Amino acid sequence: MRTAIRRLGRTFQGLALIMLPALSTSVWAQSPPDLGTLGTLGTLGAAIDDLVAANRILYRQGVVDGFGHVSIRHPGRKDRFLMSASLAPGRVSKGDIMEFDFDGKPIDQRDRSIYSERFIHSEIYKARPDVNAVLHSHSPTVIPFSVSQVPMRPILNSAGFLAPNVPVFEMRRVAGSGSLLVTDSMRGKALAETLGDRPVALMRGHGNVVVGPTVQRVVARAIYTEVNAKLLIQAITLGGPLVYIDAEEGRAGEGNRDRNEAGHGTDRIWQLWVEEAMGTNMGANMGTGTGETKR
Amino acid sequence: MRTAIRRLGRTFQGLALIMLPALSTSVWAQSPPDLGTLGTLGTLGAAIDDLVAANRILYRQGVVDGFGHVSIRHPGRKDRFLMSASLAPGRVSKGDIMEFDFDGKPIDQRDRSIYSERFIHSEIYKARPDVNAVLHSHSPTVIPFSVSQVPMRPILNSAGFLAPNVPVFEMRRVAGSGSLLVTDSMRGKALAETLGDRPVALMRGHGNVVVGPTVQRVVARAIYTEVNAKLLIQAITLGGPLVYIDAEEGRAGEGNRDRNEAGHGTDRIWQLWVEEAMGTNMGANMGTGTGETKR
Amino acid sequence: MRTAIRRLGRTFQGLALIMLPALSTSVWAQSPPDLGTLGTLGTLGAAIDDLVAANRILYRQGVVDGFGHVSIRHPGRKDRFLMSASLAPGRVSKGDIMEFDFDGKPIDQRDRSIYSERFIHSEIYKARPDVNAVLHSHSPTVIPFSVSQVPMRPILNSAGFLAPNVPVFEMRRVAGSGSLLVTDSMRGKALAETLGDRPVALMRGHGNVVVGPTVQRVVARAIYTEVNAKLLIQAITLGGPLVYIDAEEGRAGEGNRDRNEAGHGTDRIWQLWVEEAMGTNMGANMGTGTGETKR
Amino acid sequence: MRTAIRRLGRTFQGLALIMLPALSTSVWAQSPPDLGTLGTLGTLGAAIDDLVAANRILYRQGVVDGFGHVSIRHPGRKDRFLMSASLAPGRVSKGDIMEFDFDGKPIDQRDRSIYSERFIHSEIYKARPDVNAVLHSHSPTVIPFSVSQVPMRPILNSAGFLAPNVPVFEMRRVAGSGSLLVTDSMRGKALAETLGDRPVALMRGHGNVVVGPTVQRVVARAIYTEVNAKLLIQAITLGGPLVYIDAEEGRAGEGNRDRNEAGHGTDRIWQLWVEEAMGTNMGANMGTGTGETKR
Repeated sequence: MRTAIRRLGRTFQGLALIMLPALSTSVWAQSPPDLGTLGTLGTLGAAIDDLVAANRILYRQGVVDGFGHVSIRHPGRKDRFLMSASLAPGRVSKGDIMEFDFDGKPIDQRDRSIYSERFIHSEIYKARPDVNAVLHSHSPTVIPFSVSQVPMRPILNSAGFLAPNVPVFEMRRVAGSGSLLVTDSMRGKALAETLGDRPVALMRGHGNVVVGPTVQRVVARAIYTEVNAKLLIQAITLGGPLVYIDAEEGRAGEGNRDRNEAGHGTDRIWQLWVEEAMGTNMGANMGTGTGETKR
Repeated sequence: MRTAIRRLGRTFQGLALIMLPALSTSVWAQSPPDLGTLGTLGTLGAAIDDLVAANRILYRQGVVDGFGHVSIRHPGRKDRFLMSASLAPGRVSKGDIMEFDFDGKPIDQRDRSIYSERFIHSEIYKARPDVNAVLHSHSPTVIPFSVSQVPMRPILNSAGFLAPNVPVFEMRRVAGSGSLLVTDSMRGKALAETLGDRPVALMRGHGNVVVGPTVQRVVARAIYTEVNAKLLIQAITLGGPLVYIDAEEGRAGEGNRDRNEAGHGTDRIWQLWVEEAMGTNMGANMGTGTGETKR
Repeated sequence: MRTAIRRLGRTFQGLALIMLPALSTSVWAQSPPDLGTLGTLGTLGAAIDDLVAANRILYRQGVVDGFGHVSIRHPGRKDRFLMSASLAPGRVSKGDIMEFDFDGKPIDQRDRSIYSERFIHSEIYKARPDVNAVLHSHSPTVIPFSVSQVPMRPILNSAGFLAPNVPVFEMRRVAGSGSLLVTDSMRGKALAETLGDRPVALMRGHGNVVVGPTVQRVVARAIYTEVNAKLLIQAITLGGPLVYIDAEEGRAGEGNRDRNEAGHGTDRIWQLWVEEAMGTNMGANMGTGTGETKR
Repeated sequence: MRTAIRRLGRTFQGLALIMLPALSTSVWAQSPPDLGTLGTLGTLGAAIDDLVAANRILYRQGVVDGFGHVSIRHPGRKDRFLMSASLAPGRVSKGDIMEFDFDGKPIDQRDRSIYSERFIHSEIYKARPDVNAVLHSHSPTVIPFSVSQVPMRPILNSAGFLAPNVPVFEMRRVAGSGSLLVTDSMRGKALAETLGDRPVALMRGHGNVVVGPTVQRVVARAIYTEVNAKLLIQAITLGGPLVYIDAEEGRAGEGNRDRNEAGHGTDRIWQLWVEEAMGTNMGANMGTGTGETKR
C-alpha cells in the first residue's frame, strides 16, 4: 500500500483517474494541479489508504459487523469529509470512498448508495474543528451500558480517554419514540451536542460515536472502548467497589499516545492491525525485523 | 454463484438435471416447461442458492452447530417447502435440497435421510401465509431465556423485531415430560400456535424458531436474536432498570429493513455474510469497490 | 481416511507395519492372522481412525488444550485399551496410538512417554463393562462447577445425559491435600467409584471424566457438557428459578441419539466435526451433497 | 527453526552477522570465540528462538495484543537481558532481539525504538536471581481483579502457582496519580518489591508481570493466569463459597511441571503452542507421530 502511495506521488494524473474517480472532480475544481496540489494529493491518497484500512480493521476487530461507518475530514478541504458508499465496512475498497459536504450531500454520487446516517459525521465535523475522524458503530458491548443506568467508566489504562465520563444519547428526547437512526441534520446536531467535547458518546439501544484527531486514534479508541466495556462488566460481576482510571491518569495516557515516534503509542499497534486486516505485510518500518511473520 | 444462476436461465434443461435432481420430477410434473415455467425455474434456482447460503451462514455465524434446519416456501407452489436432507447445515449443498408437502412428506425421498422435526416447518407454513422462510435452531444464548422466567426482550435496534414480546414453547404442556423433539403434526401445530403472529418463539431447553417474509430476513433475525440474548445477559449483570426497544421503535426498525434498495437494511449485511460463508467474493454489486477483499 | 481403512482391509500386512507399529506385536501375539483376525483388524484400524479423529475434534472444539486424553476399549480384547502416547491431543496421529492393560501398563512402550494419569482409564474400564471410551479433560467451564456448591444440571436437550445429577470427585477425601493427578490405581479406583454408573463426573479444580458406549458419543457428551456449563452460568446470571431437563427428557434424548440411522443423532454432527478437525472432506455418505463445502 | 539453530552451530561467523547484529558486538566483546563460546552461542541462538516463539505464542493465545513485552536473562551474562525492539509481540522476529543492561540501557541501539517500560525487566532481574524470564502484559481478564477488592486466587490445577496469593501493584502509592507506565528504575523497583518472591503480580488498571525460571514456564503461567481469571469470574457468578487450590496443591502442581522428561508438564503443551504460533510443524520429537497435523 505504501508503494501505491509513493507511485501516486510520481505518476499523479493517470493513477488519480483509476483510483480516485469519485474525488477527482471536486479536487480538480477546488485546486488546480500545481506543486502544492501534488503534495495535497499525495496526502489524500495516503488518507484514503488509512480510511480503507480503518474500515477493514474495525470489522476484523469486532467493532462493526455489516453496519457502521467511519469517515475522515478531507485533508485538503476542511468543510468536506470522506466516507465509503453504503457498504459493509469489511468490504470497502479505495474506489468506494466518496466525498461529502457538511449538509451530508455527496459531491459526485453517480449510481452509488450512501449511508442514511451520514449526518452523524457532517454535524460532528461542523461542531468539532479538532476532530479529523468520526466513527459510528454498533460495538456490541457498549449496548448494555447504553440501556443501563450504570455508567461506562474506564478501568483499563488503554481506555483512559473515557475519563471523566461517557454521555448517552437518547433519541426519544430528541424525536420521541420511533426510528433510532440519525437520518437528518437535526438528529445529527443533537447527537453532536450530547457528545460535546468528549471522544466517545453512547447511543441508547444503538451503538456509539467515537471521534479523534486522526483515524488511527479513532480506531484505537473504538477498539479499547469495546475491550473496556467487556472488562468492566466482568469487574462489576466480582462485586464491591472498583478503582477507575481517573482524569489525571487518563490525560497522562493520552499524552503517551500522542507521541508520534515510531514504535510508541498507537503506531505500534496500528501496524499490526493493518497487516492483519489487509492480509499483507506492509513492511516493517520499525526495528530490524525481517518481516517473516505470517499469520 | 450469481453466474451459475444466470447460466441456469440460459441452458435450463442440462443444468437442471445436474443441479436439481430432487426437484426436477415434481417441478416438471406440476408445471410443463413453457416461458412462464422458465421464469419460475430461474426463480427456483436463485431461491435454492439463497437457501444453501442461509445454511452455511447460520453455521458460520454460530446460530446452528451440527443441528438445526432452515427452509423456504416453494416459490412456485405455495403448499410446498424446500429444505435440505438430514445434514449438518454447514455441509449442505444444492443437490441436498428436497421438496416437502405440508404433511411433512418428501416428494421424492429416494435413499435420503430427512429431518425428524420437519413438522415445525410444515405446520408454520400452514398457519402463516405471510411466512416464506422458517428456521429451527439451537442458537446457544436463547437457551438461558428459554429455561428462565426472565423474558427475552430487545435492547438492540437490530433486534427490534423482538418487541413487544417473545413467547416460550413448553413441550410438557403439549405432550408431558419426554422427548422435546417436534416429530409430528400435533407438536408442530402446538408450536405454531405458541408462535402466533410473531417472528420468533423460544422452545424450552431446546432452541427457537424464527420466521419471516424472506430467508435473508430470517437469517438476520436469527443472528440478531442471538446477539441480543448475549447483550441482554450482560445488561442484566450490570443491575438496575433497563431501557428496552419499544414497539414503535421495533416497527420503525423493521420498516428500514423492509426497504429493498441496494446497500440498505438487510441487503448490506447479507452480501458480507454470503461472501464469508461461501468462501468466495460474489462480485460487488454495490458501489464501485474493486472487490479485492479477501478474508 | 475411509479410503485408508479400506486399503488396510485389502493389503493388510504391509500397511500394518507402517501404520500400527505399536499394536502389531500384541495383536499378532494374541490373534494369529486368520479370516476372523482380518475382520478384527479392519475393525481395529477403523477404531484407531476414530480415536485419532476424537483427539483432534476435542482439541478443535475447545474441550482439551494441550492436556487431556481420550481412549477406547480394544475392539478385539475387552481387557485392553488404546490411547495415544503422551502428546497434546491436537498433535496425535495414528502411529502414536499405544495399547495398555488394566494395570495401566503399556504393552510395547519402546522409547515413548505415556500419560501419568492413564489409571483414570484402566480403572473405569474395569468397573464399567458398558463403557467403550473414556475421556479425561480440563474442559474449561466445568471447573467453576467443580469448585462451587452449585450443581451442574442440564438445561439443554443435547446435554440431557447429565440428568439426574453429576458427581464431583474430591481428591482431598482420597489422598489428602497434594497432587490432584490420578497417577495410580488407588486414585483411579476412587474416581471410578465417584463416577458410578453415570456418563460424567467432575474432578474438583481439575476437569472431568466422560464415558460412553462409543468414542463418538463420548466426544459429543464432552462437547455438550461444556456447552451446557456455559449456558447454565448465563441462566443463573439471569436470576430466579430455572427449568432443568428432567430424567425422562434425558432418557428420551439419549434414545434419539442411540438411533444409528445415517443422518440421525450423533452421526450427523460427528461427520461435520471430523471434516473440520481433520482438514479434509471425508466424502458425503449421506444425502446427495456434492461435498463442495470448504471451510 | 531447530534446523536454523543447528546451522548456527556449524557456520557461526557468517550467520551471526546476519541473524544477531544487535548481539554480536557485546557477545564478542565479552567472550572471544573459542570452543566454549561456540557452545554458548549455540545456547544463545536457541534462547533467542525460544524468545521469538514466546512473543508469537503470547499474541496468538490472547495474553498480549499489540502491547506487552517478554524478555529472557542473557544465557551467557547474568547481568544482561534480551528483549525485542519496540514492536507488537506478534510481529517480533530474531533480528529484532536486542540486549539490555540492568540500567535498562540498550547495548547497541542504532536506530531502533525501545520499550519505555523496560525497567520492569531490569529491576526484576536485579531483585530475583532465580528468574530467567519476565513478561509484562495487558492480559485482559486480570484487569477486573486488578481494580477490585476480590483477590485473584487459583481454582484450576494448571494455575496452582498463584497460591497462596497474588499481590496488586498500585502506582498511586509510588508516584501519585498520573501515568501508569513503569518508565524508570524507581517505578520498576517498586513493582519488583510488590512482586516479592512470587511468580505473578497484577498492576492496577494496567496488566500484570509474570516471571519464572524459563521462558516456557513464564508463557504457560501467563496463559493459565488468564484462563484462571476467566473461570474464577464464572465461579463467583455461581455464588456461594468456592474451593481454591491450596498451597500444598500448588506446590505439587509446580513439582509436576518441573519434571523435564519429554511429554510431561510444560513441554507437552509448549510444542503445540510453538507449532501453532510459528505456523510450522517443528518435527515431532516425542512418540512416533507422523507429524501430519496441520492446523
